[in-house]
Amino acid sequence: MRYVGPDNPEDTLATLIEFGPDEGAFFETRFTSLEEGKQYTPQQKTFWLNLHGLGNVELLKYVGRRFNLHPLVMEDILNTEQRPKVEVYAGYLFIIARLVHLEEGDQLGSEQIAIVLGRGFVLTFQEKPTGTFNSIRESLKNAQSQIRKLGADYLVYSLLDKLVDRYFGVVEKLGERIELVDDDIAAGPVPEHMNEIQNLRRALLYLKRGLWPTREVVNVMQRDDPDFFHAETQLYLRDVYDHTVQLIESTEALRDLVGSLQDTYLALQSNRMNLQMRMLTAVTTIFMPLSLVAGIYGMNFDNMPELHWQDGYFLVLGAMGILAAGLIGYFKLRRWF
Amino acid sequence: MRYVGPDNPEDTLATLIEFGPDEGAFFETRFTSLEEGKQYTPQQKTFWLNLHGLGNVELLKYVGRRFNLHPLVMEDILNTEQRPKVEVYAGYLFIIARLVHLEEGDQLGSEQIAIVLGRGFVLTFQEKPTGTFNSIRESLKNAQSQIRKLGADYLVYSLLDKLVDRYFGVVEKLGERIELVDDDIAAGPVPEHMNEIQNLRRALLYLKRGLWPTREVVNVMQRDDPDFFHAETQLYLRDVYDHTVQLIESTEALRDLVGSLQDTYLALQSNRMNLQMRMLTAVTTIFMPLSLVAGIYGMNFDNMPELHWQDGYFLVLGAMGILAAGLIGYFKLRRWF
Amino acid sequence: MRYVGPDNPEDTLATLIEFGPDEGAFFETRFTSLEEGKQYTPQQKTFWLNLHGLGNVELLKYVGRRFNLHPLVMEDILNTEQRPKVEVYAGYLFIIARLVHLEEGDQLGSEQIAIVLGRGFVLTFQEKPTGTFNSIRESLKNAQSQIRKLGADYLVYSLLDKLVDRYFGVVEKLGERIELVDDDIAAGPVPEHMNEIQNLRRALLYLKRGLWPTREVVNVMQRDDPDFFHAETQLYLRDVYDHTVQLIESTEALRDLVGSLQDTYLALQSNRMNLQMRMLTAVTTIFMPLSLVAGIYGMNFDNMPELHWQDGYFLVLGAMGILAAGLIGYFKLRRWF
Amino acid sequence: MRYVGPDNPEDTLATLIEFGPDEGAFFETRFTSLEEGKQYTPQQKTFWLNLHGLGNVELLKYVGRRFNLHPLVMEDILNTEQRPKVEVYAGYLFIIARLVHLEEGDQLGSEQIAIVLGRGFVLTFQEKPTGTFNSIRESLKNAQSQIRKLGADYLVYSLLDKLVDRYFGVVEKLGERIELVDDDIAAGPVPEHMNEIQNLRRALLYLKRGLWPTREVVNVMQRDDPDFFHAETQLYLRDVYDHTVQLIESTEALRDLVGSLQDTYLALQSNRMNLQMRMLTAVTTIFMPLSLVAGIYGMNFDNMPELHWQDGYFLVLGAMGILAAGLIGYFKLRRWF
Amino acid sequence: MRYVGPDNPEDTLATLIEFGPDEGAFFETRFTSLEEGKQYTPQQKTFWLNLHGLGNVELLKYVGRRFNLHPLVMEDILNTEQRPKVEVYAGYLFIIARLVHLEEGDQLGSEQIAIVLGRGFVLTFQEKPTGTFNSIRESLKNAQSQIRKLGADYLVYSLLDKLVDRYFGVVEKLGERIELVDDDIAAGPVPEHMNEIQNLRRALLYLKRGLWPTREVVNVMQRDDPDFFHAETQLYLRDVYDHTVQLIESTEALRDLVGSLQDTYLALQSNRMNLQMRMLTAVTTIFMPLSLVAGIYGMNFDNMPELHWQDGYFLVLGAMGILAAGLIGYFKLRRWF
Repeated sequence: MRYVGPDNPEDTLATLIEFGPDEGAFFETRFTSLEEGKQYTPQQKTFWLNLHGLGNVELLKYVGRRFNLHPLVMEDILNTEQRPKVEVYAGYLFIIARLVHLEEGDQLGSEQIAIVLGRGFVLTFQEKPTGTFNSIRESLKNAQSQIRKLGADYLVYSLLDKLVDRYFGVVEKLGERIELVDDDIAAGPVPEHMNEIQNLRRALLYLKRGLWPTREVVNVMQRDDPDFFHAETQLYLRDVYDHTVQLIESTEALRDLVGSLQDTYLALQSNRMNLQMRMLTAVTTIFMPLSLVAGIYGMNFDNMPELHWQDGYFLVLGAMGILAAGLIGYFKLRRWF
Repeated sequence: MRYVGPDNPEDTLATLIEFGPDEGAFFETRFTSLEEGKQYTPQQKTFWLNLHGLGNVELLKYVGRRFNLHPLVMEDILNTEQRPKVEVYAGYLFIIARLVHLEEGDQLGSEQIAIVLGRGFVLTFQEKPTGTFNSIRESLKNAQSQIRKLGADYLVYSLLDKLVDRYFGVVEKLGERIELVDDDIAAGPVPEHMNEIQNLRRALLYLKRGLWPTREVVNVMQRDDPDFFHAETQLYLRDVYDHTVQLIESTEALRDLVGSLQDTYLALQSNRMNLQMRMLTAVTTIFMPLSLVAGIYGMNFDNMPELHWQDGYFLVLGAMGILAAGLIGYFKLRRWF
Repeated sequence: MRYVGPDNPEDTLATLIEFGPDEGAFFETRFTSLEEGKQYTPQQKTFWLNLHGLGNVELLKYVGRRFNLHPLVMEDILNTEQRPKVEVYAGYLFIIARLVHLEEGDQLGSEQIAIVLGRGFVLTFQEKPTGTFNSIRESLKNAQSQIRKLGADYLVYSLLDKLVDRYFGVVEKLGERIELVDDDIAAGPVPEHMNEIQNLRRALLYLKRGLWPTREVVNVMQRDDPDFFHAETQLYLRDVYDHTVQLIESTEALRDLVGSLQDTYLALQSNRMNLQMRMLTAVTTIFMPLSLVAGIYGMNFDNMPELHWQDGYFLVLGAMGILAAGLIGYFKLRRWF
Repeated sequence: MRYVGPDNPEDTLATLIEFGPDEGAFFETRFTSLEEGKQYTPQQKTFWLNLHGLGNVELLKYVGRRFNLHPLVMEDILNTEQRPKVEVYAGYLFIIARLVHLEEGDQLGSEQIAIVLGRGFVLTFQEKPTGTFNSIRESLKNAQSQIRKLGADYLVYSLLDKLVDRYFGVVEKLGERIELVDDDIAAGPVPEHMNEIQNLRRALLYLKRGLWPTREVVNVMQRDDPDFFHAETQLYLRDVYDHTVQLIESTEALRDLVGSLQDTYLALQSNRMNLQMRMLTAVTTIFMPLSLVAGIYGMNFDNMPELHWQDGYFLVLGAMGILAAGLIGYFKLRRWF
Repeated sequence: MRYVGPDNPEDTLATLIEFGPDEGAFFETRFTSLEEGKQYTPQQKTFWLNLHGLGNVELLKYVGRRFNLHPLVMEDILNTEQRPKVEVYAGYLFIIARLVHLEEGDQLGSEQIAIVLGRGFVLTFQEKPTGTFNSIRESLKNAQSQIRKLGADYLVYSLLDKLVDRYFGVVEKLGERIELVDDDIAAGPVPEHMNEIQNLRRALLYLKRGLWPTREVVNVMQRDDPDFFHAETQLYLRDVYDHTVQLIESTEALRDLVGSLQDTYLALQSNRMNLQMRMLTAVTTIFMPLSLVAGIYGMNFDNMPELHWQDGYFLVLGAMGILAAGLIGYFKLRRWF
């Protein structure tokens, strides 16, 4: 059991929030050492223990023992390259999800969030603080909020809902990027566009790979685990499920758009080549006959009558002009210019 | 809970239609303020409350409370970017559908229609009046019509049927557009065609994305909710289901056609390039040898016997002519001209 | 309820065939007016009423009322653009199928056949007489035939079997067309081939769109409706089902062939361009140096010693010959000629 | 009921093998006429009647009546273009399979084998003797062999096993052909390769079309018909099933290879065109400026001071040399040579 | 029954490890001859018999008889080209898996591992020692390890886990290779890249073909065979299953990357051709008119006034310069340089 990331024990920060349905039943505590944590006993009906930074393996092991987490669960929490999944263990539900964000160069980054939902408690494990769940913390302070009333399972729904919102943001940004590149290509395709297209394609692929299992996670939670979720919360999970389906469809539509970007790029480039070829052919077809005429009258034969005509030179120039005009007219007729 | 669209409270218009199976059991009322609505009590067996414009959140909230709609339902009604779906809630069925239309530049536009089907009532929520359901209003006035006899569930069927008819119109128009572009490309491919192809492809993609969930909605209604639909109405829903399947197949066929448009475009362009290359090669192959001959007899060597022949010039011109004729004959033989 | 086709009431022709298992139990009657039909009462165990031409809506309505057909069934009969389907109604089975044929220009045409199978009777509705079912009529006259023994359900099987035979004919013809175009392309690809490929592709697409639901129809009949079909007839339906599967596979194979036709076309065209480019490059590479040499000795410098050599001209001509031979040899070595 | 193949009644040859588990319980008889067959009564527990050549319809009909075969079965036996399938009839199992072989020009040929498995007997119908099952005949003579012990169902397994072995042979040969063509293309792509690629693709397509239903046949036999197969034989059928799966995967892999052959072909050809274009551009870019210089000093102006310089000619030749060297250097730098 | 590989009887090496949950309950023995093996009787609760090298058919047959293995199992063990599978036999589970590794030239090699899991024993059959399972042997020596406690089924899990780890290594290496080739192509595409792309594609295809059935094997073991696996071990199998799913997804992503490599290659090559064509067209368009001018003033007409102007030559040179500058300016404007 080893944490796969930067190892700074002091970075692990445990935040415990206790709450109940009653007015004022809200407490927030932060632990930085194991000892602090061991002495604490929660008073309220429900509590949410959030751990930022996974470097402090001692602390994590203690949490694991205290909540009776299976070794495989502990391993998955520390190995932060997991794909989203949900697993039922005796007494708790274990959820792996990913928080996505768009990095420089249209790269898709993501962090793992591990969630344990037990009877009356929720544990969350994050690599680093992202601020995504701050609004949940705020609404927990409000005694009238749904979370305060519905408890741990609704809290898990809220976490997933925020997480899915992040996906919406990324999909939107990628959509804007695609339109930008589309306009850029229309203005004149350069090989760099091909790179950008590949980057966007890759980002959408990773997005899709994150979304499909997320959808499955929500689907399984909504349908198969009536133990952990109230009927009321299940309606909300169905809503999250709808959102993931919508996200998947948007992603597929964007993938299709990126595919058509590439088609456009290639069609424009092929068109440009066509125009160049056309110009080359026209220039060659016009100048080669003219050069031949000049070459012929540049020959040194003793007996070339035309050379001695008074207006020979001007007649040839005129003939050249007519020939050139004729060829240009021909190309104009065929709409090459 | 916020409405995602232009916010004009005064635009919300509520139309209430009451009806029963008996002759004359038909009343139509319009409310523009909340107060009017609160005082009204329906008298007939069935009523249909239609709301145009979703800016008046107060009114909508009142309607939500009055008909006991779930907060998630209210949210979906106001968030007008939902994909089609059907959801069962205690006491009512909630349906989201989309009314499509074709905009300028082959863009596919759509508006959301939210439908609530309860015992003896139907609520519909639209962004703006589209006139699509006017014929239903008319047939409601006719006491012999099926709607008057079969009530609320048949009314919902009628709404969906009209909505699916709109899809047929759009599919037909897109089919005509594709044929037009096809003829255009055959007359001479230009890069703009590529744009049009991409636009058509996009429109068909959006159409497909609207049709698939619509099919699912009708399928679920027809099969899984015997509570809300009479056996007789279910036969009609099966008919709507068949129509959506037919629409999906037509859309797939059109997508295939658009794909072959692109193939044709590229093949024609490649063919044109081929013809240009052929011309360039032929012109070069004919004129380069001739120019060389002219160049040779333009050299200034002291001792070039041919130059002093009496008919040297004419012999060379003749030779050039024969050479040219030979090359042209060769290209004719290979069918290059 | 409106018929979607050319409206000629007088064209509707009703043919009634009664038959039973006994020797001589076969009667055939034709009605052209409604009155004739109303007075007729069938005597035999089973009868088959066939209607050609759907313009006489009065007659059709009468038939609908007489056999208690649902309004949706009547609508589907008249709307002749339906996709194949089978539907169970109280007391009868309703089947829509399509008779395909290949038109000019590899276009696939089709007509709708609506079949109603009740207890002891079969109704068929066709747009126009096609002669496809004549052989069934003949075999009905034979008291030893299976149809006479097995009755209405076997008659429906026979109709479907004939219909599927028509598909076999079309698939075969398309296969021959593809081979023809293949040979043609090998002889020299021209843009018209691309058109033919697209036409064939389209025909196969429509064929596939007709075959898939036909397979489903037979599958449903064979598996889910034991009420309407004897165990013995079900064996025959299984046979029809096998045929539709075989047809679908043949169609898929032909689609693959058409796809490879296109690949061949493009590869041949690209090859031709390659050959032209090769010729152009070779001609240019051979003649440009020669022309340069000629150009150099055409310069007018006062002091050019070579010009005054006795054999200068012949030496230069020889050098040109050697250079040309060398270049030609080089291209021969690289297998360009 | 008509046989679809060359019709030579005298070619039909019936071979009957009787066997039992006991030592010496093996008899082999050949019939050439119907009469011979009618008088024969099998003595052993199990017998296998094999018919080569399907021209003798009289004999086949007799066999059909004797073993009570359904008319549809008889039809399928004679119509030798069936796809593999298995069908349960009262008292016997009917199997259609295909024996494949590779013909000239990478064409895939196949013959139909119809197998009827009844209680204690196996009937096989082949178009012509292929020798594929000779080894089974041999092992039947061995009293220790599994077939002698396990009887009719194991015999059917043995037949299928041999048949699947033939597929392995064909897959192997096609794999070798693909590698050969691959090497050939690497040595220099010519349009004939495209033909060979299409032929291989077609052969693999037909192979796949034969393998999929064969897999289904074995799957159905293994899983759904416990009546006809002992538990022990079912283990062997599972083995055949594994082999068909392996064959399908190998075929898919080969299809992928053929697809990449085509990619390689096109990439190599495009690369060759690139090299030609490069050469053309380089030659043109080097010689055009030189020719221009020669052309300038070939002009006939009265006043051209350079022409009268003592070393003008040599200076110009030198300048030309330097220009040419510079351009060649430039192209070398850009790695064009 | 024949072994399909290099036949060296003396290479077969049997290693027997006995272990139990108690401290010190660990014994390791090696047999090189059949006699040694026959005399040995295991003392501990569980034992693991591993055979390296399959040339000693005598020994294998003895093992087969001793553990009552089915002839088909023996055949599969010796035929080392099997695809991964799991089969239930009376009293034991038979598993075929493959150990992959990456060879020279991005070729994927693999060896077959056959595993038999019985009550209290595990048999493994490998072609040659690979050292992959050494760490398992080590952890078996540790009495605190899970294997010692959970026994035979956990041992099989450990074997599969190691095997799947090997896949991770290969996927990682292929990912690095792809990035390398990607950078290489960006630096300048050459036809060899196409070869490398095809090799990588092939390797990924084989990887996928190995992974899919492996996933199925683990899935079947985890879900359908509660007899052979403790509930605790099944949790671990679920973990292996997750890993195979992750591997399949990574492989699919890499396949997509390789596909986009090919797109990049073709786009870059087409771009390069475009640049060459551009250069050719520009050079031709600039020099042809200049050469024509030089040709015209090289003509030998008696009456060409310009030739006698004092500054004619310099005026023409100037005009040429201006013409050239104008054309260059034109091309610069169109961004060709």
